[in-house]
Amino acid sequence: MSFQMARRAERMNPSVIREILKVTEQPGIISLAGGLPSPDTFPIEAMRAASEKVLRDTPREALQYAASEGYAPLREWVAAHLATQGQQVDAAQVLITTGSQQGLDLVGKVLIDAGSGIAVERPTYLGALQAFAPYEPEVVSVDCDDDGPLPAGLSAARGARFLYLLPNFQNPSGRCMSAARRTQVSDAARALDLPIIEDNPYGDLWFDHAPPPPLAVRWPEGTVYLGSFSKVLAPGLRLGYVVAPAPLVPKLLQAKQAADLHTPGFNQRVVHEVIRDGFLDTHVPTIRARYKAQRDAMRAALEAHMPAGCHWTVPTGGMFFWVELPAGTDAIALLPKAVAKGVAFVPGSAFFAEHARANTMRLSFVTVSPEQIERGIRALAETLKEAL
Amino acid sequence: MSFQMARRAERMNPSVIREILKVTEQPGIISLAGGLPSPDTFPIEAMRAASEKVLRDTPREALQYAASEGYAPLREWVAAHLATQGQQVDAAQVLITTGSQQGLDLVGKVLIDAGSGIAVERPTYLGALQAFAPYEPEVVSVDCDDDGPLPAGLSAARGARFLYLLPNFQNPSGRCMSAARRTQVSDAARALDLPIIEDNPYGDLWFDHAPPPPLAVRWPEGTVYLGSFSKVLAPGLRLGYVVAPAPLVPKLLQAKQAADLHTPGFNQRVVHEVIRDGFLDTHVPTIRARYKAQRDAMRAALEAHMPAGCHWTVPTGGMFFWVELPAGTDAIALLPKAVAKGVAFVPGSAFFAEHARANTMRLSFVTVSPEQIERGIRALAETLKEAL
Repeated sequence: MSFQMARRAERMNPSVIREILKVTEQPGIISLAGGLPSPDTFPIEAMRAASEKVLRDTPREALQYAASEGYAPLREWVAAHLATQGQQVDAAQVLITTGSQQGLDLVGKVLIDAGSGIAVERPTYLGALQAFAPYEPEVVSVDCDDDGPLPAGLSAARGARFLYLLPNFQNPSGRCMSAARRTQVSDAARALDLPIIEDNPYGDLWFDHAPPPPLAVRWPEGTVYLGSFSKVLAPGLRLGYVVAPAPLVPKLLQAKQAADLHTPGFNQRVVHEVIRDGFLDTHVPTIRARYKAQRDAMRAALEAHMPAGCHWTVPTGGMFFWVELPAGTDAIALLPKAVAKGVAFVPGSAFFAEHARANTMRLSFVTVSPEQIERGIRALAETLKEAL
Repeated sequence: MSFQMARRAERMNPSVIREILKVTEQPGIISLAGGLPSPDTFPIEAMRAASEKVLRDTPREALQYAASEGYAPLREWVAAHLATQGQQVDAAQVLITTGSQQGLDLVGKVLIDAGSGIAVERPTYLGALQAFAPYEPEVVSVDCDDDGPLPAGLSAARGARFLYLLPNFQNPSGRCMSAARRTQVSDAARALDLPIIEDNPYGDLWFDHAPPPPLAVRWPEGTVYLGSFSKVLAPGLRLGYVVAPAPLVPKLLQAKQAADLHTPGFNQRVVHEVIRDGFLDTHVPTIRARYKAQRDAMRAALEAHMPAGCHWTVPTGGMFFWVELPAGTDAIALLPKAVAKGVAFVPGSAFFAEHARANTMRLSFVTVSPEQIERGIRALAETLKEAL
């Protein structure tokens, strides 16, 4: 028996990063490759208390089928939370999703036809490329500098179904778009009638000051905004949300219903119970402080050990350093040598939709201690010096 | 700003049933319309103990990102569980999904091209039609009798990508395929090189004796099998699984990863903790006993009150009666009149991919007491007699 696969199945491929992570899960390897938040930040006691309360007070509701839109008090919490960063949205525009990855899938399902153009940053988040790929888009990469997409570069996106952006502490580059660039990009997109998909999993993880307001504030009717609880609470709950302009909501909702009926109601109620009374106001600063110290350790180690010809910009939030190696260096070829010395990273080429730059790598600083960072970067620098 | 929607978005529509349920959620209405299990069957204390244990023993693992395939001990449990009904599968063939609805979405994503044929029963599960619709199939309905698809009718499915079946206590018809019919249908499908998607959310809810072994037992290399924890534990956890022939597993896995990265690890661990030591062996019989008593109550009420010219087959398991009204009766037109008398049902036409039969209705007996069933069916019969 041979199954005839859909044509789109050809576009689906194993995640390069997940394959790398399997190799690097050997004990003794210092992994700078992960995209995982630190489990030391998970609010276990708050989760325990909230689970107990939900199963004591509303077990029948929490365990029953529920609305595809999501748990109403959680949708209202999201709308109120977004107001604090300047977004005026109605709870009716908020759909709770099974992680923000599902938000990307729903956006692709509703907006992408086979052969239609979509535009992404260069580099961009690999998971978004994977979510969109089954819908068979033609992917165009917009040229970027350290401040994000170049406004003039948006002309390459003309006619695309949307421009996908990750403005805050981007995965993989770590960059954060300035307020001025947000204005330029939003205005240029509007002039092109080019919808923006604004993905914001890392925005709360700032180290010195909050990032500028979302692009959605400037152009709410043209911007779909995605948020997540994975980096401020815990990813294993799979809770994210999509906030869409009103005309898009019904189709996104129908796509959601077809995809998994609804996001687990138990999880939604537990998270709402944890966060309803301002828990994140005290919890998130503890994550920021932890990650900032680790960012500082990685910055110091990079400065101390990396050979000349390497470049990086120090991220002001998030989870990642993006390092450019001397021209001609192949990060993929470097990886097994680095693993042999006890350190792992993700080669940057995985994050390019086209014209991958082989001399790049992504380094995560959040699941490793400052001491491990020092040892890991030293080993990485040694590997690199030997290869050069 | 107007978004250009994907062509597939035209195929997405609000769930007729969900719209009906909104109308019938008024207090005082006896709803026979739901497809929800009875919350009285939810094992709340076991869930509470398991949640506490998981958050005490493995909180960091339960709350972290996890494997797209699912939690390994749960996959192994599924493989062992299926062995008890004669299926020989390796845990590597099991993917844990965010409800079995997601299994339907993944199957559609991997196997359906725009314009390719798929075959379903007449009538069939509405949620499956909704899951498949965005992939733009041409849906063919196979003629059925009270024993399921007619083997000769399968010729209509020639060339289709798959035949979707719900052999045990089908939603909506309540019918259960005999062993002989399973053999005939499986053999006919194999002769046509027609893969089978076998959906089994209700198989454990038998009243007198277990249903015959799954079709997958007879043709494992051509059958994709879907299971669910929604009806034996609780649907709000959104936990189901797909068991696929080995050649299909990698693409289904990649589709899963693109869709939501993984099913919530917390939920998977809690459910595994609940069921690992045989909990379902004592729990499921309590659900069967409850639903059987309610089935008996509905049977008695239908026999006592319904006018001549109505037909139904008494279901031997599951959650639904399927009633055929006298020819020419329009169940959709009947619904508001029934609601005015305090009872709701789902018109059967929602469950047909084509050539809907307007004189049919689905009645659920699981969330209402025997006393409510008696009152509800009496009111329904009165409505019908007035309309005839």
